[in-house]
Amino acid sequence: MMRPFIFVNIASSADGKISDESRKQLKISCEEDFHRVDRLRAFSDAIMVGIGTVLSDDPSLTIKNPTLRFERFEKGKPPNPVRVVVDSKLRTPSDAKVLDGSADTIIAVSEKASRDRIEIFSKKAQILVAGEEKVDLKKLCNHLYGMGLRRVMVEGGGTLISSLLRGGLVDEINIYYGDMIVGGKNSPTPVDGKSFSPPIKLELVSVQRLGDGIFARWRVKYI
Amino acid sequence: MMRPFIFVNIASSADGKISDESRKQLKISCEEDFHRVDRLRAFSDAIMVGIGTVLSDDPSLTIKNPTLRFERFEKGKPPNPVRVVVDSKLRTPSDAKVLDGSADTIIAVSEKASRDRIEIFSKKAQILVAGEEKVDLKKLCNHLYGMGLRRVMVEGGGTLISSLLRGGLVDEINIYYGDMIVGGKNSPTPVDGKSFSPPIKLELVSVQRLGDGIFARWRVKYI
Repeated sequence: MMRPFIFVNIASSADGKISDESRKQLKISCEEDFHRVDRLRAFSDAIMVGIGTVLSDDPSLTIKNPTLRFERFEKGKPPNPVRVVVDSKLRTPSDAKVLDGSADTIIAVSEKASRDRIEIFSKKAQILVAGEEKVDLKKLCNHLYGMGLRRVMVEGGGTLISSLLRGGLVDEINIYYGDMIVGGKNSPTPVDGKSFSPPIKLELVSVQRLGDGIFARWRVKYI
Repeated sequence: MMRPFIFVNIASSADGKISDESRKQLKISCEEDFHRVDRLRAFSDAIMVGIGTVLSDDPSLTIKNPTLRFERFEKGKPPNPVRVVVDSKLRTPSDAKVLDGSADTIIAVSEKASRDRIEIFSKKAQILVAGEEKVDLKKLCNHLYGMGLRRVMVEGGGTLISSLLRGGLVDEINIYYGDMIVGGKNSPTPVDGKSFSPPIKLELVSVQRLGDGIFARWRVKYI
């Protein structure tokens, strides 16, 4: 199966949390990391998130720096990467920022999504039906490849990242460890779902201090 | 209140897990980190763990390198640091390695611990009763200071570390981020309990590649 290069980019507290128990958006990364992430988006063809992230953070997933958008435009690319929401039951709110028209948006749904909602949302986004109960991530990734998308950045949350890893669909994981302890046994983490036994092995590509935290690049080694 | 310098030392997967859902002991750190931790123990006066760690890992909490033990001996110290188990209901098994006589052991319990068990365990360890329902960690730390212990290393688990942080009783957190993804929303993490709102701020003292992972030292900034 052909698929794009897929990498995760996520900010975690030093103790491995991406938010607290309330799941409200937490500012974990610093100014320096914000610019790094913006550049990373600019070099991607698509940005993927799970529905949980849309519901809790309502991200726009666009490039903030106008120079970076213009550079894409000069290369004949759309100013912003395609936004991809993995949303089995099509629970994306109709006023979500991913539907604001500032970039193309694909919502991947399963057969469980209501036909009525699919029809309504088809006016604002491309709806891809793949999978019976849950979105078939392999089909989705293959579909993105077929659209000519070669570099996909996954921005969370922990459930989507876990499913992608389980499917062997992640090449690299970028983690920014921020300078804080969030704690909480019920707080969301970079990789939720069920645990992997044995764990998935990584290779440390690079690590550096960035702003007040740590930026690490890990390569995923599927055996 | 006088208390020792208290620091946490823990190994976490890249995604912030200290074990998988089964809570079985996982080898997260590498050879290089193993030696670092052994040296850190040798420079400590006490090693503290929670009862959960005793029940799941049955650690001996002693110094493995005989040269390091001998160096302590030459300085007039006991070969191994004092072992401290925080165990409100005195659930430590009678055959636990922390009771093997290779080092002094303190078990801190609350009023909830049975008198009979306290009497039995008094033959193998010093039993400190502090706190009604749960161990009063401030009293415990003050007691350790009174014994002349000035440097306490906390090796887990996530519940004890969370309680110590909540009490303002942690000065520094050393985390080794190992080269693996464990995942799992129910896997134990370096800091469990309830989440902190706002998060506890840290200052990054140092970060470096160590073996196949990352070793980071964070200073705790209570505001």
